[in-house]
Amino acid sequence: MSTPTFGAGIWHFATYVDRYATDGYGDPRTILEAIELAGKVNDLSVVDLNWPFFGGDFSNEQIKTSLDAQGLRAIGITPEIYTRTFSKGALTNPDPGVRRLAHDLITEACDVVRSFGADYVKLWPGQDGWDYPFQVDHGKLWRLELDGLGQLAGENPDLKFVVEYKPREPRVHMSFDSVSRTLLGLEQIGLPNIGILLDFGHALFGGESPADSAQLAIDYGRLFGMDVNDNMRSWDDDMIAGTVHPIELMEFFHVLRRNNWEGVWQLDQFPFREDSVDAANLAIEFLKRVHAALDRLDEDALAAAQEAQDAVTANRLVHGALFG
Amino acid sequence: MSTPTFGAGIWHFATYVDRYATDGYGDPRTILEAIELAGKVNDLSVVDLNWPFFGGDFSNEQIKTSLDAQGLRAIGITPEIYTRTFSKGALTNPDPGVRRLAHDLITEACDVVRSFGADYVKLWPGQDGWDYPFQVDHGKLWRLELDGLGQLAGENPDLKFVVEYKPREPRVHMSFDSVSRTLLGLEQIGLPNIGILLDFGHALFGGESPADSAQLAIDYGRLFGMDVNDNMRSWDDDMIAGTVHPIELMEFFHVLRRNNWEGVWQLDQFPFREDSVDAANLAIEFLKRVHAALDRLDEDALAAAQEAQDAVTANRLVHGALFG
Amino acid sequence: MSTPTFGAGIWHFATYVDRYATDGYGDPRTILEAIELAGKVNDLSVVDLNWPFFGGDFSNEQIKTSLDAQGLRAIGITPEIYTRTFSKGALTNPDPGVRRLAHDLITEACDVVRSFGADYVKLWPGQDGWDYPFQVDHGKLWRLELDGLGQLAGENPDLKFVVEYKPREPRVHMSFDSVSRTLLGLEQIGLPNIGILLDFGHALFGGESPADSAQLAIDYGRLFGMDVNDNMRSWDDDMIAGTVHPIELMEFFHVLRRNNWEGVWQLDQFPFREDSVDAANLAIEFLKRVHAALDRLDEDALAAAQEAQDAVTANRLVHGALFG
Amino acid sequence: MSTPTFGAGIWHFATYVDRYATDGYGDPRTILEAIELAGKVNDLSVVDLNWPFFGGDFSNEQIKTSLDAQGLRAIGITPEIYTRTFSKGALTNPDPGVRRLAHDLITEACDVVRSFGADYVKLWPGQDGWDYPFQVDHGKLWRLELDGLGQLAGENPDLKFVVEYKPREPRVHMSFDSVSRTLLGLEQIGLPNIGILLDFGHALFGGESPADSAQLAIDYGRLFGMDVNDNMRSWDDDMIAGTVHPIELMEFFHVLRRNNWEGVWQLDQFPFREDSVDAANLAIEFLKRVHAALDRLDEDALAAAQEAQDAVTANRLVHGALFG
Repeated sequence: MSTPTFGAGIWHFATYVDRYATDGYGDPRTILEAIELAGKVNDLSVVDLNWPFFGGDFSNEQIKTSLDAQGLRAIGITPEIYTRTFSKGALTNPDPGVRRLAHDLITEACDVVRSFGADYVKLWPGQDGWDYPFQVDHGKLWRLELDGLGQLAGENPDLKFVVEYKPREPRVHMSFDSVSRTLLGLEQIGLPNIGILLDFGHALFGGESPADSAQLAIDYGRLFGMDVNDNMRSWDDDMIAGTVHPIELMEFFHVLRRNNWEGVWQLDQFPFREDSVDAANLAIEFLKRVHAALDRLDEDALAAAQEAQDAVTANRLVHGALFG
Repeated sequence: MSTPTFGAGIWHFATYVDRYATDGYGDPRTILEAIELAGKVNDLSVVDLNWPFFGGDFSNEQIKTSLDAQGLRAIGITPEIYTRTFSKGALTNPDPGVRRLAHDLITEACDVVRSFGADYVKLWPGQDGWDYPFQVDHGKLWRLELDGLGQLAGENPDLKFVVEYKPREPRVHMSFDSVSRTLLGLEQIGLPNIGILLDFGHALFGGESPADSAQLAIDYGRLFGMDVNDNMRSWDDDMIAGTVHPIELMEFFHVLRRNNWEGVWQLDQFPFREDSVDAANLAIEFLKRVHAALDRLDEDALAAAQEAQDAVTANRLVHGALFG
Repeated sequence: MSTPTFGAGIWHFATYVDRYATDGYGDPRTILEAIELAGKVNDLSVVDLNWPFFGGDFSNEQIKTSLDAQGLRAIGITPEIYTRTFSKGALTNPDPGVRRLAHDLITEACDVVRSFGADYVKLWPGQDGWDYPFQVDHGKLWRLELDGLGQLAGENPDLKFVVEYKPREPRVHMSFDSVSRTLLGLEQIGLPNIGILLDFGHALFGGESPADSAQLAIDYGRLFGMDVNDNMRSWDDDMIAGTVHPIELMEFFHVLRRNNWEGVWQLDQFPFREDSVDAANLAIEFLKRVHAALDRLDEDALAAAQEAQDAVTANRLVHGALFG
Repeated sequence: MSTPTFGAGIWHFATYVDRYATDGYGDPRTILEAIELAGKVNDLSVVDLNWPFFGGDFSNEQIKTSLDAQGLRAIGITPEIYTRTFSKGALTNPDPGVRRLAHDLITEACDVVRSFGADYVKLWPGQDGWDYPFQVDHGKLWRLELDGLGQLAGENPDLKFVVEYKPREPRVHMSFDSVSRTLLGLEQIGLPNIGILLDFGHALFGGESPADSAQLAIDYGRLFGMDVNDNMRSWDDDMIAGTVHPIELMEFFHVLRRNNWEGVWQLDQFPFREDSVDAANLAIEFLKRVHAALDRLDEDALAAAQEAQDAVTANRLVHGALFG
């Protein structure tokens, strides 16, 4: 099959803070600087943009010019509904005023999507959830989440929304915690323009088999986007794709191919201590290895092995295709 | 509120083997001996029975007589769809012949339920799932699971079925792995007579908040049963309820009470090395403490704290009610 | 037994940032403001101070005056060897120049300890370790860690050093990852003035039984300090002590009492979204409950149960003492 | 480098039971049948034998004859100190009589080692530990473990003992839970003839980096043996080596090679539902791929990258050597 299009969240090229290195893992960068770095990556074509644009007061036009200069296109806009204002929740905030702020910020992000001709509004409600036992009325919280999301999708039927689930962080428990919970919610909302942005690492972190998660989302017609990275299964480490779990990552892409899913192969990595361009290059080099291995994979033999649920034969075929 | 009815899986009073102590953690017991032990527990009223009955070739009448003698009632029948025959899957077995065997065994269990006037057929498809990357076609496997389950529920509209999900064990990944995945499947089947048997420890093991899981299942009208135990969150240890996570267990029961859910408080414990009667007694003693603590809990103040998502106030109220 | 002395890390009263809420979970506070808040907590007597002092250029005298005003004493000084400069490691940094900076910063912290008459220099080398497979030569990294630590302890024989281990975060793997690894290292260094600051939550996170960890550190004469909090076992959530795992926390304090360990009961909590004074109050209220429960506990009966490794009896005794 | 010698635990070729499939995952096999199956594996040279020999009353001579016929040699003898008799502990059993039985069984196993000219007695004290909070006096339990082990090593100075640690299972917490705890214990015993049998999967399960664990054990002169398999990091799944974590497995072997460690590359797999010969073949095929990849790896470039702790460069080198 033809080479896929590669993309990345623009935050891949930012610098980071955490609760210990409060002075950051490097000098702050503007989104323009990040775009410039993204342009240095081999074979990167699209980016997902945080919004409001970080590091300055930039117009959409400035950003477009910068993207054009690097041969990049915006695939999605990610409104920042997880900063201080929303630290107790965006769509599930106990304060109706803050819920309205979240709604308004996302609504503005819709216009940014339209302005860029991007594919979707990406929602990652990382602060929606809870931390402690007994902290929330779980039924009410979930209704707030679905009502808020449904209202936005209903108000913007010309746009696609994608929800990126994750088990936890920064909340101890996120409302959209898994592929199944998210699909359950989206089916309940019942609108066609909300789907899932499946993050390989989030699925792994949640104890899912990412390949199974992808198949499930596809079967519901709701796999609108995806991104990859790697981790140690117990946290969203956002490490370089392929450095820890290459086989499950290959299985994930195998499911996409088998279903003729033809979206962008995106990166969601946080290279805290690494050169971000080099980290992206290594990931894309690995993704190309996987792509080539899938070309080499004997699909008929694999299908027969899977029909028999024969793990040994299936994995022997995979090893033959992936390893030297 | 009035004291709840307490129950237990009859396997609580069996002995166990595992892959190391292949000679067992004690002499094998017949189900009749297990029922006798169950009768020694203070305040135990109902039991869930494995079927075929273990330890001998017993008729339904023999079992009923034995239950009567101990003042016990059968709440559910659990067909053993996880033994050698089904080790590569029951409803998802790659061999259609074995899938049929599973269907037939469950169908026979339906008659046992009718014979005992029990509340439900309990299905725990612990061998349905996969172990390895690339082992299965995930879409097909899930369809087999839902088709098999839907067929049974359709064929027995007079009965209730409950599905007990768990993340894993004995398979590395179980098809019904979480509350959300199970609800997603049950909604897709679309029949009213299949619900969830929510195991507190399975929810905990899966990274769920059991209270949230209960609320979700209730909101879908599908919380048909529940049982409790405890574990270290990373495995289905089936330890004595209340010995490790008393607060989340209290939150779980709080959600049940708030929703006026009035089923049996069941135990699903595996006292490998403990006296099984004493282990059940300790658990029930703890459940009574929780019940009394819920009576003491200031519900209005808690509701206000939860409305504000105020974890500190909520937990102070809980500590005041639960601790001395 | 008499009421324990309670303490807290002064960061308990700071505000926080993380990689998402980069604008922080509240307005930044100076250490003076944090001390003032600490003073509002009921029954808080000592604090552990980050150094350099955050939020401004404060002299030791200013801090002392502020502590005196609140009736607080500094128990330890925690040099910040985990900020940007040290993001690739402090004592294990690949750059010898940065290793020297770490050494010098800690050496300065030693003088601060002397100036305050504090009990110890607290070292939490959170950036010492690795993220990726193949990233480091594990033998060399460990030697750098021990050499760096040993040199400091040797140069400052008049002071005590405590090492606070943790499995991970911010590195994917921390060099001092467990109680056993830390003891192994300290024994190899072989100096009497380095011990462990045992964080209850870090032990829990690492799959340890914190009570066992405490006993082990005591048996090596190296339990120099401790702090408590709570978490979901899979991450260092730094939640309010007693809200999730009250029984294991009680067991931890039981081991301390049985060994006549008489240090400060400290808090290491990060109340991201909570009122920090109220969060500390709730924790201390709980610790007092535990203290009272230990007074009520039938030690002879418990000792007999433990001699028989009788979990049911032991936990029945504990439940009777802890619950209402 | 020359091809390594491959080995396997003989239980790889047995069938298994667990707490659900109590009738087993296949017909029981005798150790003679298992040896015959082991002989069918390509390139398998040595086996580790459970003792007493399972499935019948076989003499050492019968076993030797059978091994000879298959061209196999016994590398170790594993006394079964984890069956019913020892279900509450072997060396740490609360009953001194059972502790003596454990001592006697291991002592007899010593003679079997001598009779076979095997390399070591392998001790896997899987039942030594605890399940519940407050169940044991942790200090006493650990002393029982070390005293029991030290006595055996002292009584049999002509033999080598290896201890295989694991975080848990079947106990909720095993006394020898990690590489560091085990080394700490062995150093305290202080005898030269006790070392570690490092199981790759156990290290992974325990959150260790197996490569780091190997280096640490080597640095203490106590890496006496090793075996490999794979798992999902959260349990001892004993899956086929290389099917999930090929890169960390390669790093593990890289550390062995760098240290000129030249022992047997053993398998400890439990192919519950797979053909055991085929499962062993796939693993060995993978191990040969790793061996060849290590030959291709640019060691100087890797050493330079590790000196700089440069994860991207190091992993690019590894990917180049391992993948096609």
